[in-house]
Amino acid sequence: MGKIRIGIVGYGNIGRGVEQSIKRNDDMELKAVFTRRDPASVKIQTEGAEVKHFDDMEAMKDEIDVMILCGGSATDLPVIGPKVAASFNTIDSFDTHAKIPEYFANVDKAAKEGKNVSIISVGWDPGMFSLNRLYAESILVQGSTYTFWGKGVSQGHSDAIRRIEGVKNGIQYTVPIEAAVDQVRSGSEPELTTRQKHLRECYVVAEEGADKAAIEEAIKTMPNYFDEYDTTVTFITEEELKENHSKMPHGGFVIRTGETGCEGNKHVIEYSLKLDSNPEFTGSVLVAYARAAHRLSKKGESGARSVFDIAPAMLSQMTPEELRAHML
Amino acid sequence: MGKIRIGIVGYGNIGRGVEQSIKRNDDMELKAVFTRRDPASVKIQTEGAEVKHFDDMEAMKDEIDVMILCGGSATDLPVIGPKVAASFNTIDSFDTHAKIPEYFANVDKAAKEGKNVSIISVGWDPGMFSLNRLYAESILVQGSTYTFWGKGVSQGHSDAIRRIEGVKNGIQYTVPIEAAVDQVRSGSEPELTTRQKHLRECYVVAEEGADKAAIEEAIKTMPNYFDEYDTTVTFITEEELKENHSKMPHGGFVIRTGETGCEGNKHVIEYSLKLDSNPEFTGSVLVAYARAAHRLSKKGESGARSVFDIAPAMLSQMTPEELRAHML
Repeated sequence: MGKIRIGIVGYGNIGRGVEQSIKRNDDMELKAVFTRRDPASVKIQTEGAEVKHFDDMEAMKDEIDVMILCGGSATDLPVIGPKVAASFNTIDSFDTHAKIPEYFANVDKAAKEGKNVSIISVGWDPGMFSLNRLYAESILVQGSTYTFWGKGVSQGHSDAIRRIEGVKNGIQYTVPIEAAVDQVRSGSEPELTTRQKHLRECYVVAEEGADKAAIEEAIKTMPNYFDEYDTTVTFITEEELKENHSKMPHGGFVIRTGETGCEGNKHVIEYSLKLDSNPEFTGSVLVAYARAAHRLSKKGESGARSVFDIAPAMLSQMTPEELRAHML
Repeated sequence: MGKIRIGIVGYGNIGRGVEQSIKRNDDMELKAVFTRRDPASVKIQTEGAEVKHFDDMEAMKDEIDVMILCGGSATDLPVIGPKVAASFNTIDSFDTHAKIPEYFANVDKAAKEGKNVSIISVGWDPGMFSLNRLYAESILVQGSTYTFWGKGVSQGHSDAIRRIEGVKNGIQYTVPIEAAVDQVRSGSEPELTTRQKHLRECYVVAEEGADKAAIEEAIKTMPNYFDEYDTTVTFITEEELKENHSKMPHGGFVIRTGETGCEGNKHVIEYSLKLDSNPEFTGSVLVAYARAAHRLSKKGESGARSVFDIAPAMLSQMTPEELRAHML
């Protein structure tokens, strides 16, 4: 049987993470990377794979089994998602929670018309964290679920810092508050405010002569991003930023505690991730679900799916027999 | 839509755990408990449900949607599993790892002939731990997976202690060794011996006048059960045993660490359970999968399945739309 032929649409951090993951899955091969830039200007890490323009996807319809869409959720995926799903099986990491129902409906329509399978909102949150919320709540019917993120880099918050006048560069870490995590693990089902769950740590490179006090004030009072949190601001040099803050670590915890029986027996289910590279891990999840999309498509299925709809066995290179013998 | 009508086959610890879980799932109702004992001697906790003899299952074919088989894996399930699967949808917690392929085949044949769905080996290990091994290995293709159990009561080891001459009563806790767990979490992918992963703690009530030194020696050198472990033996009174050791707590950890990309980025995926009552938690998992079996059967499917084959959405009372809107 031939390898599963993958196309990557968008070559940013996630796209590069997907490329690296394909190299580690020997039933897969990267056929092409599609970019909005001039293809000649994009250098990829896979020998034998092509770089093509977005407009040239259609011509590769018979050479690609699954397209992995690595664009942003704000403006990119709402357009690209349904468009590519009309011609290819797709995987994406759409993560604008409030718009998931609308996005699902649009992708579903296009995928059904094109007789393709599209798995949306794949990654770790949404993705693996969502799955763990679902499993835990289906088992412990009475209880409370908590999600903590970090310690890790939030791109959105880092971007917000960099837009402030006088800021040359900067990065923001979301940090779960250990006392809150411990309180949750105790099974006491506390009600926690936004401020009680996470801190925000900012490392900022100021422009020469900039008003640092004003920058700190602007960050700490920024609505939606920082005003509801305890935030620390540390000024560092560009060299320190490069040296100590150039990785994209992330992670977090999904914890559900609940009760069973009539004697008040308590249970704690916890799932946690500690990731050196958020985009490489996310890319690895996307690639595993690409295998599932390919298999479902081969079985004649079509339409949109989420991680909730995918039987776990679909993700593995092992056969059902091997899985039962070795992993059950 | 009517409630999902459940039958419990075998009324030991797990059967009672299932009964309690049904009370907390408002789309389910317990119709009957089946026992090998004289039904008149078995008192259950659910008003309106019947107690019947094993031999009277067939007569309730039209009144029960899913039978949850709560017998032991050694001698009970290999007979009962295929037998009941011929007439009913079933769920069981078959856990003799080496015999899973044979058991699956036997149940599959009976379930297909009877046009029923049977989900085998459901619980937390096999079950939730198996799922987490599968998800983690599908994502982090290069890496190592470790399973630690405990701190918790092992029935098999407790029974082994109680068979020793001079022992009146006793209980055994399996305890994961924290240093080993920490070493695994560090991502160093250590090779660990049996002795390095778990301790065994025994609390023993000796018969009056028994030779305690001989009992301790007999435990610590018992092949298969204790000889490969560091084991502690503490003698206590029957009252202390009743007071401090009458619950059945358990739990454990599945940890996978691995690398992605070409720069040696490390990742840790960890799933852990801390359970006050092993049978009540196991019962809760069985009940969630009973919902899935019922739904698959309604869709016209038949045959044996494992947790690997069940799409997570099948476990939840929520609709796919609700799940996407609220849990993704």
